Amino acid sequence: MHTSTALLTDHYELTMVDAALQAGTAHRRSVFELFARRLSGARRYGVVAGTGRLLEAIERFRFTDQELSFLNEQQVVSARTLDWLADFRFTGNIWGYPEGEVFFPGSPLLTVESSFAEGVLLETLSLSILNADSAVATAASRMVHAAAGKPLAEMGSRRTGEYSAIAAARAAYIAGFTATSNLEAGRSYGIPTMGTAAHSFTLLHETERDAFAAQIAALGTGTTLLVDTYDIEQGVRTAIEVAGTELGAVRIDSGDLPVVVRRVRHLLDELGATRTRITVTNDLDEHTVAALAAAPVDSFGVGTSVVVGSGTPTMGMVYKLVAHEDASGAWVSVAKKSAEKASVGGRKSVRRARTAAGVATKELILLGDGPGGTSEGQDSDGRTVLEPLIVGGTVQPGFTGRDGIAAARERHRTSVAELPPVAMSLTRGDPAIPTEYR
Amino acid sequence: MHTSTALLTDHYELTMVDAALQAGTAHRRSVFELFARRLSGARRYGVVAGTGRLLEAIERFRFTDQELSFLNEQQVVSARTLDWLADFRFTGNIWGYPEGEVFFPGSPLLTVESSFAEGVLLETLSLSILNADSAVATAASRMVHAAAGKPLAEMGSRRTGEYSAIAAARAAYIAGFTATSNLEAGRSYGIPTMGTAAHSFTLLHETERDAFAAQIAALGTGTTLLVDTYDIEQGVRTAIEVAGTELGAVRIDSGDLPVVVRRVRHLLDELGATRTRITVTNDLDEHTVAALAAAPVDSFGVGTSVVVGSGTPTMGMVYKLVAHEDASGAWVSVAKKSAEKASVGGRKSVRRARTAAGVATKELILLGDGPGGTSEGQDSDGRTVLEPLIVGGTVQPGFTGRDGIAAARERHRTSVAELPPVAMSLTRGDPAIPTEYR
Repeated sequence: MHTSTALLTDHYELTMVDAALQAGTAHRRSVFELFARRLSGARRYGVVAGTGRLLEAIERFRFTDQELSFLNEQQVVSARTLDWLADFRFTGNIWGYPEGEVFFPGSPLLTVESSFAEGVLLETLSLSILNADSAVATAASRMVHAAAGKPLAEMGSRRTGEYSAIAAARAAYIAGFTATSNLEAGRSYGIPTMGTAAHSFTLLHETERDAFAAQIAALGTGTTLLVDTYDIEQGVRTAIEVAGTELGAVRIDSGDLPVVVRRVRHLLDELGATRTRITVTNDLDEHTVAALAAAPVDSFGVGTSVVVGSGTPTMGMVYKLVAHEDASGAWVSVAKKSAEKASVGGRKSVRRARTAAGVATKELILLGDGPGGTSEGQDSDGRTVLEPLIVGGTVQPGFTGRDGIAAARERHRTSVAELPPVAMSLTRGDPAIPTEYR
Repeated sequence: MHTSTALLTDHYELTMVDAALQAGTAHRRSVFELFARRLSGARRYGVVAGTGRLLEAIERFRFTDQELSFLNEQQVVSARTLDWLADFRFTGNIWGYPEGEVFFPGSPLLTVESSFAEGVLLETLSLSILNADSAVATAASRMVHAAAGKPLAEMGSRRTGEYSAIAAARAAYIAGFTATSNLEAGRSYGIPTMGTAAHSFTLLHETERDAFAAQIAALGTGTTLLVDTYDIEQGVRTAIEVAGTELGAVRIDSGDLPVVVRRVRHLLDELGATRTRITVTNDLDEHTVAALAAAPVDSFGVGTSVVVGSGTPTMGMVYKLVAHEDASGAWVSVAKKSAEKASVGGRKSVRRARTAAGVATKELILLGDGPGGTSEGQDSDGRTVLEPLIVGGTVQPGFTGRDGIAAARERHRTSVAELPPVAMSLTRGDPAIPTEYR
């Protein structure tokens, strides 16, 4: 696969650059903002994910001969614009919510300050990555809370595109999952990978006993045996007969889990396998995980629901021009007027207001001179949220690669811990804290 | 990005190979089947997509030093298995529903005949690609029908992962969309790309008139002007004043579309722009497209809903071992017994039964000696469906690349035309034709 990310975008980003170059307006300094008008799925909070991937993708956003010859052959842009694209690299500034941070309606997740042409080119790529990864992280964060401290593994690669699967494993890990089944996520991002055997492995062998013996011979008694291919009770008995009472775990992938899990725990204990753990994996989502809170489950494997955002496969984020220099060089705030798609023009900074005890109370969006400016500093409520991600075209340290993932995972843990208890409700409803513009 | 696809898979596929190699069962000839137990979203038919991408991905399924060193460092498999993987290439046969074909519950979309180890390694990759791409194509096909012959453009890149966006553009095109906004889909697959300008382009300029003039100067009067940044009626008037009555089209992205579109058509006609087309793009799905059937819309742009499968982002397909050779070399049919996840063991072939007039009546799944065998030939009802996709490890011609996409698009057109009228219902319900096992 080609490494440039420059064509992972919409045709109209290029034609807008073409027309603006010709009109002499392409170089006007502009501020674009990436935000969500509402929390998709009536969630109580959103989780920003994908930021590190986006920063890496922006570094690879270059028009090489492959991209330029396609644009030329298809006459997408003029010859003059092709010359401009050949030299393109993003030279502006991007402030943003660092990865793992929670967000609310209107939160300016990215503030892109650059020429119009540079900023508009990043629209589609930024939205693709943040919409998809944040949808997974937002769902995953709810599941982590529902699991109440028990470990969750992401196992949904088969239910999303083969490259989205890697991004999903990464986003779920940032939101607090402990492992993934996806090997490329392990190789690319250092996320712990896990997995043992599927039903096909049992079915391949003459008997379940043969299959278990083969697995234990290869993977040791610490492995997890899948006990529900035929009869679960018999499967558990056979598992302990073959592995002994030191068997690591049994996995259950079918049945009425709250009932089945209790029976299996009882049986394992009766057989002396008191330390053998139980892991369950049957089309779980945050609601079924929560329903197993009182059951003797030791860990969860979640597939489909986490990678498709548990009913909300995209966050509905948008990327809007909010300010630009006019012909005289003066800054003007702009916003689309259509009633149902209104946006708030102008530069913004953010503080998350908190009580003395550190509980978040408001998402304060401060109109004024933008992140790092005086308007942000004038309000002493709460803490700052925005961080400089790219300065003068240079990606800042700490947000990308494995360090970025580790920081994002820790940041998510502390950010979600600040939220009021209502944030943990799994019902549809209002955002956990209101957004206030000042 | 790395070109091998071998780690786009689950950890347990590798540990199963490891255990089966050690047990001496890895080389047993096996038959795996990829199918959907039901049609997700209670759709009336499914559309197979991704097959061409999968065949290309299987050709790149090789363990190079990068993959092997990761598996070694992480001790995913033993040294012996690493040696086996180093030489791996798929040498078996794959029969399948060719891309673009419609399908029903139980339809064997892929039949993979190989050693157990070779077949099990392809499970996750096959499911990732077919589940995701087929979800898009299935939704897109409904939208194409709802549009009743008017062209549809796919514009949803920003609402799905940056690589899934390319696959989604491809799947929508196979299902009958006419174009995409995604440039990489144009470059990789030759799909026509389109796009003109967004609201930010209008907002950048001092006036809407300046923005329209700039766009027309660069793109000509055949372009599409976005007229709803401020007031739609004024936008239309300004568009025709600037472009003249030969303006190609206006785009409307907000408002109560059936009402707004009629007003805009009336106004355009009044202004003499009787040939200026109207394109609409406001969070459309198959239902809102259908609701515009009687409105004077000339074309549709569909974003979010098509790339996320319009409520069904994955098809829920599974990949199951259905038969294998036992220790004595005899073939045995196998199936998991769990009540809610039962599967039908054994090799299968398929005929789509039809009336004398050519209307599909049943999906006949014939148990016996499999595709191309005598059981398929014994039943003269209808037409065959399965085709050999890979023979002895070699991808067969006609299914991959741009030729494959063109063939799939045409195949979809003819396959969906065979279905009874109930197939076109947008309500939830039973499959358009029943699946019958013989």
